[in-house]
Amino acid sequence: MSLPGHTTAAVLHAPGDLRIEEIPLRPPGPGEVLVAVDAVGICGSDMHYFATGRNGRNVLRQPTVLGHEASGVVTAAGPGAGHEPGTRVAIEPAVGCGTCPTCRSGRYNLCPDGTCFGSPPTHGVLAGHVVAPARAVHPLPDAVPLELGALIEPLAVAVWAVRRARVAPGHRVLVTGAGPIGILIAQVARAAGAAEVTVTDVHDARLARARELGASTTVNTAREDLTLTGADRLLECSAHPAALRQGILALGPAGRAVVVGQAAPAVDGVPLAHLQRWEIDLVSAFRYAHAFPTALALAAGGRVDLAPLLTGRFPLDRAADALRAPGADPHHLKVVVRPTGSPAA
Amino acid sequence: MSLPGHTTAAVLHAPGDLRIEEIPLRPPGPGEVLVAVDAVGICGSDMHYFATGRNGRNVLRQPTVLGHEASGVVTAAGPGAGHEPGTRVAIEPAVGCGTCPTCRSGRYNLCPDGTCFGSPPTHGVLAGHVVAPARAVHPLPDAVPLELGALIEPLAVAVWAVRRARVAPGHRVLVTGAGPIGILIAQVARAAGAAEVTVTDVHDARLARARELGASTTVNTAREDLTLTGADRLLECSAHPAALRQGILALGPAGRAVVVGQAAPAVDGVPLAHLQRWEIDLVSAFRYAHAFPTALALAAGGRVDLAPLLTGRFPLDRAADALRAPGADPHHLKVVVRPTGSPAA
Amino acid sequence: MSLPGHTTAAVLHAPGDLRIEEIPLRPPGPGEVLVAVDAVGICGSDMHYFATGRNGRNVLRQPTVLGHEASGVVTAAGPGAGHEPGTRVAIEPAVGCGTCPTCRSGRYNLCPDGTCFGSPPTHGVLAGHVVAPARAVHPLPDAVPLELGALIEPLAVAVWAVRRARVAPGHRVLVTGAGPIGILIAQVARAAGAAEVTVTDVHDARLARARELGASTTVNTAREDLTLTGADRLLECSAHPAALRQGILALGPAGRAVVVGQAAPAVDGVPLAHLQRWEIDLVSAFRYAHAFPTALALAAGGRVDLAPLLTGRFPLDRAADALRAPGADPHHLKVVVRPTGSPAA
Amino acid sequence: MSLPGHTTAAVLHAPGDLRIEEIPLRPPGPGEVLVAVDAVGICGSDMHYFATGRNGRNVLRQPTVLGHEASGVVTAAGPGAGHEPGTRVAIEPAVGCGTCPTCRSGRYNLCPDGTCFGSPPTHGVLAGHVVAPARAVHPLPDAVPLELGALIEPLAVAVWAVRRARVAPGHRVLVTGAGPIGILIAQVARAAGAAEVTVTDVHDARLARARELGASTTVNTAREDLTLTGADRLLECSAHPAALRQGILALGPAGRAVVVGQAAPAVDGVPLAHLQRWEIDLVSAFRYAHAFPTALALAAGGRVDLAPLLTGRFPLDRAADALRAPGADPHHLKVVVRPTGSPAA
Repeated sequence: MSLPGHTTAAVLHAPGDLRIEEIPLRPPGPGEVLVAVDAVGICGSDMHYFATGRNGRNVLRQPTVLGHEASGVVTAAGPGAGHEPGTRVAIEPAVGCGTCPTCRSGRYNLCPDGTCFGSPPTHGVLAGHVVAPARAVHPLPDAVPLELGALIEPLAVAVWAVRRARVAPGHRVLVTGAGPIGILIAQVARAAGAAEVTVTDVHDARLARARELGASTTVNTAREDLTLTGADRLLECSAHPAALRQGILALGPAGRAVVVGQAAPAVDGVPLAHLQRWEIDLVSAFRYAHAFPTALALAAGGRVDLAPLLTGRFPLDRAADALRAPGADPHHLKVVVRPTGSPAA
Repeated sequence: MSLPGHTTAAVLHAPGDLRIEEIPLRPPGPGEVLVAVDAVGICGSDMHYFATGRNGRNVLRQPTVLGHEASGVVTAAGPGAGHEPGTRVAIEPAVGCGTCPTCRSGRYNLCPDGTCFGSPPTHGVLAGHVVAPARAVHPLPDAVPLELGALIEPLAVAVWAVRRARVAPGHRVLVTGAGPIGILIAQVARAAGAAEVTVTDVHDARLARARELGASTTVNTAREDLTLTGADRLLECSAHPAALRQGILALGPAGRAVVVGQAAPAVDGVPLAHLQRWEIDLVSAFRYAHAFPTALALAAGGRVDLAPLLTGRFPLDRAADALRAPGADPHHLKVVVRPTGSPAA
Repeated sequence: MSLPGHTTAAVLHAPGDLRIEEIPLRPPGPGEVLVAVDAVGICGSDMHYFATGRNGRNVLRQPTVLGHEASGVVTAAGPGAGHEPGTRVAIEPAVGCGTCPTCRSGRYNLCPDGTCFGSPPTHGVLAGHVVAPARAVHPLPDAVPLELGALIEPLAVAVWAVRRARVAPGHRVLVTGAGPIGILIAQVARAAGAAEVTVTDVHDARLARARELGASTTVNTAREDLTLTGADRLLECSAHPAALRQGILALGPAGRAVVVGQAAPAVDGVPLAHLQRWEIDLVSAFRYAHAFPTALALAAGGRVDLAPLLTGRFPLDRAADALRAPGADPHHLKVVVRPTGSPAA
Repeated sequence: MSLPGHTTAAVLHAPGDLRIEEIPLRPPGPGEVLVAVDAVGICGSDMHYFATGRNGRNVLRQPTVLGHEASGVVTAAGPGAGHEPGTRVAIEPAVGCGTCPTCRSGRYNLCPDGTCFGSPPTHGVLAGHVVAPARAVHPLPDAVPLELGALIEPLAVAVWAVRRARVAPGHRVLVTGAGPIGILIAQVARAAGAAEVTVTDVHDARLARARELGASTTVNTAREDLTLTGADRLLECSAHPAALRQGILALGPAGRAVVVGQAAPAVDGVPLAHLQRWEIDLVSAFRYAHAFPTALALAAGGRVDLAPLLTGRFPLDRAADALRAPGADPHHLKVVVRPTGSPAA
């Protein structure tokens, strides 16, 4: 089989300057596979890079292919890679170096030397083909359509956040922020046994969607006060310090708050005395570690419903439109770019 | 209000010799309540006492009121007891001394000095009225019918077993034994996110019920081999050493086996090398600790369906028939005696 | 035996107005004991009440006996209390209601309805005799002198803080603040296997003491920068937000910070992005739950050395001097008042 | 630098047939290092292979170099291996495939596809030089002599066993079996805060050594009954089912038993009712996962004393004598073979 020597990709050159270009493609080496990309989900971090050239502490300094939420089909495998061509897969974009103490302890998401597809200067998956380490590709169960495989990555974010939260059967859970991650977290929290899931946001359209997909109660905090008290768990997905503050105050004894939305470098007004009096743990979720198998099991078993989250499809040459869509319309939850799949599918 | 000085109770005098008698009833003291008993579930341990005069190491040595799974209505409260008359409640039958280190650490189910309603010589709840410590009565949410309140105790057994098992979203779970506890565990495991729940038994009728109530796969081990491998969790509810042995062999790396069914004093043929090679934890569940609130939340929220488990009702004067019913007919899951409720309800 | 009807106590009437008075003493009721108080440690919270009439959210509104760190000898026991007169004991001052879900889950330190000796309006232990619930008194092992029994309470604070921190063998631990709690935490962290314990403070005298008692490195942060990086655990005992901030930045991947010093209602500048990038847990310690047995075992086994911490002794009628002593002289670690013991012992 | 093309090794051809031979040596590949072996500890498993040609389920089917406990000096590094020549190291002999879900979850000791130096057919470290993956070599701190580096592997066994046991400050710990692993476990349990460590064995010489190195009490179970009750933790190191049985009965509520000694395929007489009544966890330790860093920290910090365990040294050409020594003389704890080090050092 002859391998392609180049592929078409969406390359960000500068804020707002996304170009569809041919880029060179190396063959998969030992322990690597070549994946024909079917669908790529657009994430808030992609939108930040596109709009501003940066995301948190990461800054675009050279042209970089965007994207890190991908599904596709293995088309070639290097020596020892162990995946048959034709295998449908979801790609885990950040897998750690594998050899440092942090990786060896199972927390590879915290690897100091790790890279992530689509975090500059590492190229991303918004391309026709990508080369990935074999340990980063997860075969899709038959029950998961290829296109929805692009949503396994955000589902893994939700799985890890709920795991970090230690949600247990009977818990009363508060989710602040009804974007795609908040809604996936609401679903996973339900799957983990939460008895009540309250979701807050400032967009009614998003809250309506949250109610359809796992929330037992919703609160539009632009209009109403959050009166919840004594909750067991908070998952903060809005990245607003006020939501974190109010959410912490809604927790009861031995509660647990998880920061999922991208945290600011320094946050003021943290209610430390409340945290201490009730021994509420304030913890964080950063990406995920060995969460893809759980995400795949939940999706395959119908415990989480991914299809309603996919609200828009774009071909690769309209990637810039895809990057603008969620910001322009709060009805959007997750849009995908389909480099090799049919955008009308 | 004048309190009754006596109540009608089902008193076991000797194996097979159950008498419906008037017994004295003291008023509730400080921190105690008087409960008019609505429904009492019949448990395997009650059946053992009735048939043989013993259950495990506990032996009947003097006439004792049987029963420990009860719902009812508070009719009077002693000083500081804190429950209004009229409150519908489920009774937690074993709550520990509250002062020993084991109780203080939150594992009050293991209290060396604890007593339990209906474990001789402590009288049980198969009576018109009982006096209970206030901390042992849990108000029923509106969504839980009073009669089904008698099933909260076995549901708490299931909640605790699943908690001890650390079932997490995506897990593949094996439950050996499809009696009431096995079926409740299957439901709670699903509620806790299990992706697959395999249930085994030797009665097809029970396995059919298990499939209706949460099992994704069933195996009649009287006819078929259990071919499951690499499971994450085992909950052994059959009390058969062979089921424990086979269940352990079905577990994979870092698996966890929970002994729920009453364990024999000494068990042979434990596959210790398999347990060690894969670091499978072999742990146990004994009653429950602070599991009633979770059980009530799961029942109230519809995450567990109790009604299909209730397969028979008897008035107090037919308590002996109730004690014989499940053994005589494998279609029975849980029968209740209704001391003050209507048995035809 | 005739019981005393009154006892001498140190009663705080207003900031700075501490009076040595006779107060009434009731006999021990069911489940209670009468304790002749030998020694009472002075804590920062006592000093706050004495100086300002408040401590955190608690405010002095009526005359209240101060003190909550006591040892003594049981002199009488109510029905069912289970301690022989003559038993040497340490008193656990806050034990929870024992019946709420929080207490029943083993986290009785977080009981919403709990009281604590010496937290207004509940009277404290700076008195000749006190009545205490039996579950609040812990017999002293022979190896622990009665006077040092007053230091078991702060040692329990340290045990709980280290337990909340999950210090494990080989850990590199940072303790900010070298007061009595910080120094006890350094010792307990060593006993829990910490390979390195760095202690910070702004007083050289305290740091010298810390080095004698378990610290492997000390840093005077009034003069030097804290250059530590990649630490596993932080125990913040100084109550300074800057120490918390710097301490968090010294932690590495999957680190854990425990707020032990009294937290301010709201804290600014919390480095949330650092917490999130490395999934550092920010948790708190509030009093202790079932930590007295561990504290007693560590003291009895010589794993923690209490004697060097006791730097001053005062008779009851000089309690006000005792309350001023630690603030006046940074060489003081822990001073005790000895209501019935000999202050010159 | 020119690399050696062969090395001298101790090759087991059949039970009792150990030959000192020249074997080919390949250069280190990408991510690999070449190590000049200084010292190799002799383990019970090596003795089993030598005596019987098998160890548990593993069977010698072709000539194999024995040995898996090694220290040495890096003499060459392949591309990307990241260790400077001259680095003193301990070798972790089993590190898993690194890509399977079990490895990715941090439990790489349970990798189904893993190999281990010296487990046939994988060659071991009883040789002048070995090639090892870079992630398997751990630099020795200055405070750890090179020769004692060979004892880091058994110390890691002890660290992992104590971690699996969840030994906490104040615990009362029982260790059954006073061989090198039992004595190291006693030391690590002390370092983890155990208040009492009881060690049992049938050899007085071993028990005397245990008392010198961390045991607070010893019991010769050949002569005396074990009367301990209510212990918190058991670490079973003797591989005798009777010791496991008696040890379990010595545990109290919520205790935890860890099987460390090599488990038989099936064990009879497991006291399951006792395990269940007190919810005692029966768990196992298999090798270790990310325990080398902790072992190195404990050895470097003097929390564990390795030197007294090293009771014999042999040159490579007397490896067969080394393999017979511990069985011939119960005074021996750990003997080492020194392929390139001086056996008289």
